[in-house]
Amino acid sequence: MTEIPTTTRQIVLASRPTGAPTSDNFRLETVDLPELDEGQVLVRNEVMSVDPYMRGRMNDVKSYVPPFQVDAPLDGGAVGEVIASRSDDVAVGQHVLHGAGWREHAVLPARSVRAVDTDAAPASRYLGLLGLTGLTAYVGLTAVAEMREGDTVFVSGAAGAVGQAAGQIAKALGAEKVIGSAGSANKVARVLELGYDEAFDYKETPVRDGLRAAAPDGIDVYFDNVGGDHLEAAIDSLTTFGRVAMCGAISQYNATGAAAGPSNLFQAIGKGLTLRGFIVGQYDHLAEEYRARATGWLADGLLTGDETFRDGIDAAPLAFMDLLDGANTGKMLVRL
Amino acid sequence: MTEIPTTTRQIVLASRPTGAPTSDNFRLETVDLPELDEGQVLVRNEVMSVDPYMRGRMNDVKSYVPPFQVDAPLDGGAVGEVIASRSDDVAVGQHVLHGAGWREHAVLPARSVRAVDTDAAPASRYLGLLGLTGLTAYVGLTAVAEMREGDTVFVSGAAGAVGQAAGQIAKALGAEKVIGSAGSANKVARVLELGYDEAFDYKETPVRDGLRAAAPDGIDVYFDNVGGDHLEAAIDSLTTFGRVAMCGAISQYNATGAAAGPSNLFQAIGKGLTLRGFIVGQYDHLAEEYRARATGWLADGLLTGDETFRDGIDAAPLAFMDLLDGANTGKMLVRL
Repeated sequence: MTEIPTTTRQIVLASRPTGAPTSDNFRLETVDLPELDEGQVLVRNEVMSVDPYMRGRMNDVKSYVPPFQVDAPLDGGAVGEVIASRSDDVAVGQHVLHGAGWREHAVLPARSVRAVDTDAAPASRYLGLLGLTGLTAYVGLTAVAEMREGDTVFVSGAAGAVGQAAGQIAKALGAEKVIGSAGSANKVARVLELGYDEAFDYKETPVRDGLRAAAPDGIDVYFDNVGGDHLEAAIDSLTTFGRVAMCGAISQYNATGAAAGPSNLFQAIGKGLTLRGFIVGQYDHLAEEYRARATGWLADGLLTGDETFRDGIDAAPLAFMDLLDGANTGKMLVRL
Repeated sequence: MTEIPTTTRQIVLASRPTGAPTSDNFRLETVDLPELDEGQVLVRNEVMSVDPYMRGRMNDVKSYVPPFQVDAPLDGGAVGEVIASRSDDVAVGQHVLHGAGWREHAVLPARSVRAVDTDAAPASRYLGLLGLTGLTAYVGLTAVAEMREGDTVFVSGAAGAVGQAAGQIAKALGAEKVIGSAGSANKVARVLELGYDEAFDYKETPVRDGLRAAAPDGIDVYFDNVGGDHLEAAIDSLTTFGRVAMCGAISQYNATGAAAGPSNLFQAIGKGLTLRGFIVGQYDHLAEEYRARATGWLADGLLTGDETFRDGIDAAPLAFMDLLDGANTGKMLVRL
């Protein structure tokens, strides 16, 4: 029988970053675990997700999710095994998906965890292609950008977790051509292997030039993970009634001042462009539909994705800093 | 019988403006009128429209409408009487709407003019509320911003032709509250008379402050005629799933450099905002629907609009310069 721990290690926000986060902004600490109340479960986390959007929550500003609190643990998606349960709905031994990552063990209400089948797919996939990463790519293309068969689609951050998924899903949905930008020659090579039709290294080629070469007739859809000059170049390149899914702006996450918006935004008037922002939580109603399609695409080999693993709870802060630097290819994860 | 003229006076673009246009950029000239070919009509223009979007066409840049050519006549919407016809479809004496303003007489293919009933409404209305001005307001609210009953709607340039129409149409469509910004105390007073629930003078009150006071709980829809700091303040104020109809950016039309985009555009991600640009020509399919509804609203007194008239073809350039300066209330027109 598994020994039931009475403490857990967790990562807390030691101070708010100014600009790029440093190790000083994080602290590893050990805290007591509470006794289980009726309806609660104790989960031993096995793998946790590290995501760019967390940077925004480290600032003390009102946003779509509340900011992290200083001296409180960070959180994020995780999959683990239930090792104690006071709920009839969740059995010991079950693997579950939940939102209390950044710690080795978590006490949670049974109703806040979702059972996952780790025989059908590795635990990490439920944080990636079968989880919010894949769903983000899917809803961005479908509900947000209203992608149509035959569209030319541009995805920035193409080698990131969402970017890898978006390119492949766009092809699966019938895109005529999918173009990606990424931050190194190796990443460019990798996204081409994954099914992107064209890709360029934005550190070597200005985005406008890369786009013009890859899509001389323009693009219909832009899936924006980056913001900044990527968004501006995409606006130049979009055709009439072109659509932008604004998913992320990683180029600006560490900015200490207000970043200028795209200076060519007025082009949206004449070209009838639509720019629509989203966070995946606004599209929960599409999760079932996505899981069904993604399961098929995975089985058919149309959808896959790289995973970059770091090991141990103490590796999580550096994993996050590296993610913001683009050190990952595909999904950044920490094994616990 | 009307004497048939053999010449016409017209305004040509003498040179391209840099920044705000001046009289030097325009020239009044007299040219010969061609003999009518089969299928053509000769129209004596009675009233012509003066519109902000023309400023963009004075630059030598590719846009959604081709640029004006130096030494060629300007054009724009006009209504006039047919005084000679070589078409069975259009009779002498008929009033018609067409695109060859900025001249006193025009020779046109009969198929490019549309008959209007000047007994039912004055000729100028077919350039304004019953024409592209009203249609612009209507499609911006409906098809572009997807306004719903109960929405709080903000309209910039509320005292302009499109702005006056947009506020009243928003109310007719069931908006809970309609807020306007305008550039003088008199304009503010006027838009309140026309049915706006709240209005403020953006030259006296920063847009953010005016919006916060008028809509403490935020806005659902922003109808943007202005761009610049108006758009930025609106993005701050928009609620989750808020929508922007980008119709114009008059604050930037005379800019000589690239204007910075809204520095808070990233808020579109968390709030799930949609910014959609449009020009009315993209929504021709809604013209019939609009005319039917507008006719009813006019009859019911729900929709009216001011008209600022200038007299004589030689007054047209100054009318245009004044329009860009905001000297008009409602529709700017030149009687010929």
